[in-house]
Amino acid sequence: MNILICGLGLIGASLAKTLKKNTNHTVLGWNRTKSVTEKALRDGVIDRTGEVDDLMREADITFINFYPDAIVPFILEHKDSFKRDSIVSDSCGIKTKICREMEKHKLNFYFIGAHPMAGREVSGYDNSLDNLYDNASFICTPFEDTPRNKTDALVGLAQQMGFARTVVTNPEHHDEMIAFTSQIAHVLACSYVLSPLAPMHAGYSAGSYRDVSRVARINAEMWTQLFLDNKEALVREIDDLVSNLMKFKYNIVNGDTDALKALMEEGNRIKEEIG
Amino acid sequence: MNILICGLGLIGASLAKTLKKNTNHTVLGWNRTKSVTEKALRDGVIDRTGEVDDLMREADITFINFYPDAIVPFILEHKDSFKRDSIVSDSCGIKTKICREMEKHKLNFYFIGAHPMAGREVSGYDNSLDNLYDNASFICTPFEDTPRNKTDALVGLAQQMGFARTVVTNPEHHDEMIAFTSQIAHVLACSYVLSPLAPMHAGYSAGSYRDVSRVARINAEMWTQLFLDNKEALVREIDDLVSNLMKFKYNIVNGDTDALKALMEEGNRIKEEIG
Repeated sequence: MNILICGLGLIGASLAKTLKKNTNHTVLGWNRTKSVTEKALRDGVIDRTGEVDDLMREADITFINFYPDAIVPFILEHKDSFKRDSIVSDSCGIKTKICREMEKHKLNFYFIGAHPMAGREVSGYDNSLDNLYDNASFICTPFEDTPRNKTDALVGLAQQMGFARTVVTNPEHHDEMIAFTSQIAHVLACSYVLSPLAPMHAGYSAGSYRDVSRVARINAEMWTQLFLDNKEALVREIDDLVSNLMKFKYNIVNGDTDALKALMEEGNRIKEEIG
Repeated sequence: MNILICGLGLIGASLAKTLKKNTNHTVLGWNRTKSVTEKALRDGVIDRTGEVDDLMREADITFINFYPDAIVPFILEHKDSFKRDSIVSDSCGIKTKICREMEKHKLNFYFIGAHPMAGREVSGYDNSLDNLYDNASFICTPFEDTPRNKTDALVGLAQQMGFARTVVTNPEHHDEMIAFTSQIAHVLACSYVLSPLAPMHAGYSAGSYRDVSRVARINAEMWTQLFLDNKEALVREIDDLVSNLMKFKYNIVNGDTDALKALMEEGNRIKEEIG
């Protein structure tokens, strides 16, 4: 197959490198900033490039790897260029807004939202890796009427690429889960380092600080879009988290040893069970 | 020197293993459960054992590695056994309550509170490591009138043992910093996994979930004591964290793109600067 990667940043270039490493498909590549495309070509990360509409006409599967709010406009702008009956997918961290917007349009290709679940605290082509997805989950969110063989083709490609796990679900469930597994984790890492004591941590910190604060290194522009595109689910998670923190505070202030211990035993039990 | 390790759990046995690996001091060991002491002796983790009061009479430096609330009573119970002018220290995660209580007593040895800043999600002798402290900080909190050469002896031992960094401060500053670097990190990890969505995370989670939830595996008994012994500083950190989370919520609910982005840029800037 011809696989087209539009957007050769951290996520897109890592997809390209993974395709080159683990499959025999031809990797077509395109990036808005031309110097990046040329670098990817020189590095052998992509097999070919060209005018984006020409590449779309050749591609059996296309991945659009842009910031959330740029994906739908770009696809619609080029909607007459994609190969008939081909699969067009994306890699962004929210799915409902994108998929339900795409669903409104009559198209002669199949859009299936996707989310390869891996990232780094750094971004851009130069930080992309051929093993970023080795232990990662590939989630895709077809429409209710997406033909089964199209979803299977996308999932099959993810399996060939070496994703550790593939999940097929609907966009709403994806976004609800991601609000918990990813978005709130970033919100709390940021909230954590905003403590007035954070700048003095050296000498007093160890693994807990390191791990909990890691994802405070955040691409503010991109995550602002992701958060605002998943408002309802994320606010629910913030509310749950704050309510649990207030339980800790209440028990600590009251010196309620038994209740405080029970709360931690519950947290410990859940973490042991769910990994 | 003869170094006595009382309590051969994760922390104590790791201290013993580190002493054996990186120094030539004689390591005396004692554990309330005798089978553990015998195992440590067989494993060569300690050089000798015996009646605890006899060992204390021989030890130049003693580390008491018990749960927070057991440390002061144990030291006072054996206060006449410790070698005259020797150093008695501990390894527990809060210092004010312990040090200010010890300060009230006239003793013929020198108590200097200590906190080797490393841990694991698992506990007990069998999980102890000879490299647990390789990248760790050794914090000690002498009294205002502790002789300088005694503090230097303890710090010197920590340096011989290979701690990456030694810090001398007062108990109150230690506890304030630890409320931020360690305690609130455990509170938020626990609060995080108490979300109703946590049990469904498989397939939807990656590094953010893994890192932020790691320390939810917590020894509830021990941390209950640590939290209640550091109430004021910990509650201040919970309040700061909740207030920052509410700023996120407010900006998300209002769709305030600029304020939300500014908040994350601030978090990102701090994290980049402070590491």
